[in-house]
Amino acid sequence: MQTVINVSGMTCGHCVTAVTEELTALEGVQAVDVDLVAGGVSPVTVTAGRELSPSELQEAVEEAGYSIA
Amino acid sequence: MQTVINVSGMTCGHCVTAVTEELTALEGVQAVDVDLVAGGVSPVTVTAGRELSPSELQEAVEEAGYSIA
Repeated sequence: MQTVINVSGMTCGHCVTAVTEELTALEGVQAVDVDLVAGGVSPVTVTAGRELSPSELQEAVEEAGYSIA
Repeated sequence: MQTVINVSGMTCGHCVTAVTEELTALEGVQAVDVDLVAGGVSPVTVTAGRELSPSELQEAVEEAGYSIA
C-alpha cells in the first residue's frame, strides 16, 4: 500500500538520499519516491507491505533532518 | 596559505560536506571553511601548506557536483 507524506526542508539530491534511506529502513518498505520541490514541500510516496503509522514516518523523516509539513 | 574560491550551487549542509571532503582530499590542504549561501555563491576558504592551482581547485569542486562562480 502507498502512503504519501509531505516533507519540507529538502533542497537537493543529498537531502532526497537522506530521506529515502531513512524511510527505506522502515520494516516492510518496498519503495520510496521523492518528488523534490527544492526549498518547498516535497511529496514523498512510500510503498510498503503493511500500514505505516504516522509516528514512525515522522520519526524517520526527522531522523534524516527534515520535517513533515 | 589561504585561497578563497566562490562556489555556486550549494544549498544545504550535505552540499557543504561534499565540497569540504573533495577539497580536503587535495594534497597539503589543512582546513576548508565554507560560508554557505544557500542557492547562491558561497565563499570557501581553503588553507594549505602549498600554493593550490586554480585547475585543481576547480576539479575538486566539480567532482563534488558544484561549480566555481
